[in-house]
Amino acid sequence: MTDHRSKEKAPAARLERREFIRKAAAGSVAAAAGVAASTFPKPSLSQGLMKWRMQTTWPKNFPGLGTGANALADFIGKASDGRLTVDVFGGGEIVPPFETMDAVSGGTLEMGHGAPYYWKGKVSASQFIAAVPFGLNVAEQNAWVQFGGGQELADKVYKEMGCKFFVSGNTGVQMGGWFNKEIGSLEDYKGLKMRIPGLGGEVVKAAGGNVVNLPGGEIPPALSSGAIDATEWVGPYNDLAFGLYKSAKFYYYPGWHEPATLLDNFINLKAWEGLSSDLQAIITAANGYCNMLVLSEFNANNNASLNTLVNEHKVVLKKFPDEVLNGLGALAGKVIGDLAAADPLSREVMASISTFRKQAIAYAKVSEQAYYNARGLPFKWVEL
Amino acid sequence: MTDHRSKEKAPAARLERREFIRKAAAGSVAAAAGVAASTFPKPSLSQGLMKWRMQTTWPKNFPGLGTGANALADFIGKASDGRLTVDVFGGGEIVPPFETMDAVSGGTLEMGHGAPYYWKGKVSASQFIAAVPFGLNVAEQNAWVQFGGGQELADKVYKEMGCKFFVSGNTGVQMGGWFNKEIGSLEDYKGLKMRIPGLGGEVVKAAGGNVVNLPGGEIPPALSSGAIDATEWVGPYNDLAFGLYKSAKFYYYPGWHEPATLLDNFINLKAWEGLSSDLQAIITAANGYCNMLVLSEFNANNNASLNTLVNEHKVVLKKFPDEVLNGLGALAGKVIGDLAAADPLSREVMASISTFRKQAIAYAKVSEQAYYNARGLPFKWVEL
Repeated sequence: MTDHRSKEKAPAARLERREFIRKAAAGSVAAAAGVAASTFPKPSLSQGLMKWRMQTTWPKNFPGLGTGANALADFIGKASDGRLTVDVFGGGEIVPPFETMDAVSGGTLEMGHGAPYYWKGKVSASQFIAAVPFGLNVAEQNAWVQFGGGQELADKVYKEMGCKFFVSGNTGVQMGGWFNKEIGSLEDYKGLKMRIPGLGGEVVKAAGGNVVNLPGGEIPPALSSGAIDATEWVGPYNDLAFGLYKSAKFYYYPGWHEPATLLDNFINLKAWEGLSSDLQAIITAANGYCNMLVLSEFNANNNASLNTLVNEHKVVLKKFPDEVLNGLGALAGKVIGDLAAADPLSREVMASISTFRKQAIAYAKVSEQAYYNARGLPFKWVEL
Repeated sequence: MTDHRSKEKAPAARLERREFIRKAAAGSVAAAAGVAASTFPKPSLSQGLMKWRMQTTWPKNFPGLGTGANALADFIGKASDGRLTVDVFGGGEIVPPFETMDAVSGGTLEMGHGAPYYWKGKVSASQFIAAVPFGLNVAEQNAWVQFGGGQELADKVYKEMGCKFFVSGNTGVQMGGWFNKEIGSLEDYKGLKMRIPGLGGEVVKAAGGNVVNLPGGEIPPALSSGAIDATEWVGPYNDLAFGLYKSAKFYYYPGWHEPATLLDNFINLKAWEGLSSDLQAIITAANGYCNMLVLSEFNANNNASLNTLVNEHKVVLKKFPDEVLNGLGALAGKVIGDLAAADPLSREVMASISTFRKQAIAYAKVSEQAYYNARGLPFKWVEL
């Protein structure tokens, strides 16, 4: 076989020549030549490298969410060979978590990392991109973004905030949340003070709940002080890390309100447009990679965390009664329909999601859903 | 805000300087200086760029499979700014499809694209990495590869074939296959000449089937000539493209034999190890991105293709009876157990998968599976 090692080294030297020549041909001959003459032999290797800052809405290094943002920054730095490095800041390190979008729109930061429904006060349609109650699951949502027109619609929504949009992770279907009392009927939502963002929050409001949104880091003290009666956050892996079991006993499933919550990486539009096409390709691929990685991190860790919650912390795991789910589903239909009717861009996004959902449900019945049922039959499988 | 455009341009010039200086400092001053003097003003931009060749096992540009390989090559080229370009060849363009691994192992090609079970004749453990009957679904399999030890095990398996391993796509759960007669009991597999690769093929063999494997491109003529009675391929999107409905009437689900079929991108190990770390990062991220993209392409197109098959081509869509699925599940347990017992590396891989599967099944019950059930309740959702 060819000696790839030597093949590899030669192009590196030639690439430098090619780059040199390109600049020279572009008219910067003097500058390019001057470089060689004036800076050798005391190179300052740190000069001229792009340094970006990304603030997340999450606590720094938070499992899945923060670690996903770290992985994104890491891959951009590695794949660009350090030409573009992204420093990651936790929510509040530069600006308060929910002001991350303002900081990116305004150019204080180049990048942010959060979830689209946090920006619903700026552009209402963003909440439909995050997660839709009883809507698409994660595989369906990815398919909608990549091949169903979702990327184009999300870019349209984020352009109104001066940003480029990328999916940068997904939690998969979340848990239904933490409650101090059992939820036996829709009536039990009446007067309930619950932290639940986005469209899920609108549905709980329609059920009579007293809904607030809080950045993740503020949830544990709010729940333990009684400022809220109930909260959802993500799933076992994240909820265990926040210690939510200390303040609420009942842990409900499934997360009807967030069947697949997409994490957004938003980039100041001018910063994005100023990038060379190779750096744009690197950011695109790194986000696609992190999308799969973040979901995988959750899927690999949720069950062990759930076991810890149930076995060590004596959490009571409960399924929402079908009557409650059916009632919430009907409310979701009404609330989503009303919000979409009130705003043309929201309507455009929701019409696209709703069309995609119809065919996704039909196909799930002969694919994933049918497979779960088949795998659950009583046969004895292999044990190793 | 900062003018990112000018920020972007400056580093490009400085990077060139930095690279120039690095080479100079490394002792190639004369060569580096010589470049500027001797090659300007007639640059030969094609010099020194790495060109790799990747053959796929699929027909060129085949939906999802071939287009996924194209996307991988495209992103590597773009993200490396042309420093590494990958030319894609369809199965048979350089060597026969199933000899792709030999060509990559031996260094004729740098890259290949296929599915791990095609290499079970070389290293038996590879078939466990592809898809396990009644095993992990796609989200679980990704989690196993990324966070459950799967990448390390797959690298160990592929190292025996002189290759580096990447997951480069996934079909999700496949369809059960095309049959000329109804499958009412396990007995109906007796004497059935069926194309079905990997562990699924071993299970059908154990049920009394007469199993063959064929590269994709050879399936349609084999089915239409009667050389085989039945075949599985992928799912509606791919099966429609092959016109399999012309030769078989019954289309069964779910694909118990391939609940998530992983596509492999395998790279000649010396070629991989000879790459600079930035190119390695680019290939890693591009494969992760394509993993999500390929699945999304299938998920976005399967249902429309299924509608075409059923409505235009009058295909009879049928679910395998539970009795058959349960019987196949028990056979799968036995076959997989026997194969794992016969080979230490297979056993190591299967033990890891089997452990991961237990917790995955437990978590699916409170997450995806519970969500599918909730979404299927009779409430009226939004229609736009």
